[in-house]
Amino acid sequence: MNTSPTLYAGIDGGGTKCSAILFNHNGQILGQGRAGAANAARDLPTSIDSMISSVEQALQSANLSIDLLAQVKVSAGLAGACVPQVKTQLENWQHPFAEFQVTSDLVAACYGAHAGNDGALMIMGTGSAAARFQLGQLTQFGGHGFLLGDKGSGAWFGRSAVSQTLEAFDGIIDSTELHRQIQESLDVKNANQLVQRMIHASASEFAELAPLVLELAKYKEPSSLALVKQGVTYLESLSQQALHNTRLSIVLMGGLASPLKPWFSQRTLDRVVDAKGCPEWGAVRLLKADFPLVN
Amino acid sequence: MNTSPTLYAGIDGGGTKCSAILFNHNGQILGQGRAGAANAARDLPTSIDSMISSVEQALQSANLSIDLLAQVKVSAGLAGACVPQVKTQLENWQHPFAEFQVTSDLVAACYGAHAGNDGALMIMGTGSAAARFQLGQLTQFGGHGFLLGDKGSGAWFGRSAVSQTLEAFDGIIDSTELHRQIQESLDVKNANQLVQRMIHASASEFAELAPLVLELAKYKEPSSLALVKQGVTYLESLSQQALHNTRLSIVLMGGLASPLKPWFSQRTLDRVVDAKGCPEWGAVRLLKADFPLVN
Repeated sequence: MNTSPTLYAGIDGGGTKCSAILFNHNGQILGQGRAGAANAARDLPTSIDSMISSVEQALQSANLSIDLLAQVKVSAGLAGACVPQVKTQLENWQHPFAEFQVTSDLVAACYGAHAGNDGALMIMGTGSAAARFQLGQLTQFGGHGFLLGDKGSGAWFGRSAVSQTLEAFDGIIDSTELHRQIQESLDVKNANQLVQRMIHASASEFAELAPLVLELAKYKEPSSLALVKQGVTYLESLSQQALHNTRLSIVLMGGLASPLKPWFSQRTLDRVVDAKGCPEWGAVRLLKADFPLVN
Repeated sequence: MNTSPTLYAGIDGGGTKCSAILFNHNGQILGQGRAGAANAARDLPTSIDSMISSVEQALQSANLSIDLLAQVKVSAGLAGACVPQVKTQLENWQHPFAEFQVTSDLVAACYGAHAGNDGALMIMGTGSAAARFQLGQLTQFGGHGFLLGDKGSGAWFGRSAVSQTLEAFDGIIDSTELHRQIQESLDVKNANQLVQRMIHASASEFAELAPLVLELAKYKEPSSLALVKQGVTYLESLSQQALHNTRLSIVLMGGLASPLKPWFSQRTLDRVVDAKGCPEWGAVRLLKADFPLVN
């Protein structure tokens, strides 16, 4: 008979990183782990590797053997897991854990942010998406990925800035400080070099340019300011759509939440609250509802 | 001693197809071949396969053995060949031909369209780009590829229509006839299905949706009309930039040239002339300048 106490891991997986938090049965944090990308719709094998690796790291950070992997009950919130075909593949995965369940990153994040209560969420990171969790149902707005949507996201800011810089090289728009800084930061001198540098760039690599845009917008640099206004107009529409006809609160999450928040309208800000718990905790709480709050 | 007469092949390679025309030493067309994508910056191995396959097909269509490949002098104009690193790789390629030279698809197309004289070019196909060929020098405008630019191209029209349809599913823009027809043509009923259907789509697959947008724009469908105006504004800027401070003529080329031409301003149309020769002929004429005109 196996007498080891059960372990729980909550996973938050997105386009750039996969984070795991390891809990004991009382909901106390034992360790944390972090691995690479885990967008299940974009690359399922990599996502699976990232999940295993992040839980192994969490075990190690708790000074536990990675042989205990088979005793960990895992609940993951993964970007792209809402795509039906992807969800089926994940549910049929012969996982190495004691138990495995998966939901979309938005469900886990929303469940965590509002401590299992109904509420809305606006994610602004490498990608962008809004969600409303109400009466046990998640409704998603946006979050269609870098190729087809995700306006106002880090990847979108970066790619838009690069595209504009190319148009400035072509002489069809005026060159601005933003374009100069993009050239400098990517160490390119002409359009060919810039295309060569970024043609195979991932969403995460484009997102690395976003802070530059947001910093310049603070000082009213016109190109950056226009991009921030365009991005935030889209994000506000998504937020309002998530809140539409409800009295729910909304939590702003992701790496761009803090720099973009001042650009939101008072109408949206009036509904914004702080998160009660992190997405990893939201994921694991879907397995074991009596866990205490963590953040 | 090998007494077979030399054969010449001109190749025009782009994001969707690779076309080869086989000529004898008098410039008479002997055969034609066609293979898949040949964007050298996007996928060099596939481009190389497409080039070999298109020349083999051209030999076969001329009732010649593919063993004659080693007697064909080949000149290729390839999308992406202007990227320095790509050009070097192509120049170092251990090709199976008698001779091989490569230039950008724009140089070959421009050289063909203006029969070796100075002139400008506006390409509107799967991708978009303008070029000016003057005093032996090609200057390119746009043509930065699907991910970073190529506004007004088939791929751009298709992807923009899909992105809009997703925003309509989200309820953040009004749903229009364009969005209804995109859903119908892709056989999708909601945002998840649409993302799943198109998330891995190539530029060519997006471009397949462009005729739908252009057809609706003719009937003033508002979403399509707005996209056509936005696309043509960009294409006009590129054209004007290519013509700037010159008295050159411009040739409109590519699958969208005919449906988009009516949307161009008179200022640009006043400079438009018909092509004197095709890109394959332009490519091969860079090898052997005394070839007669073909089209």
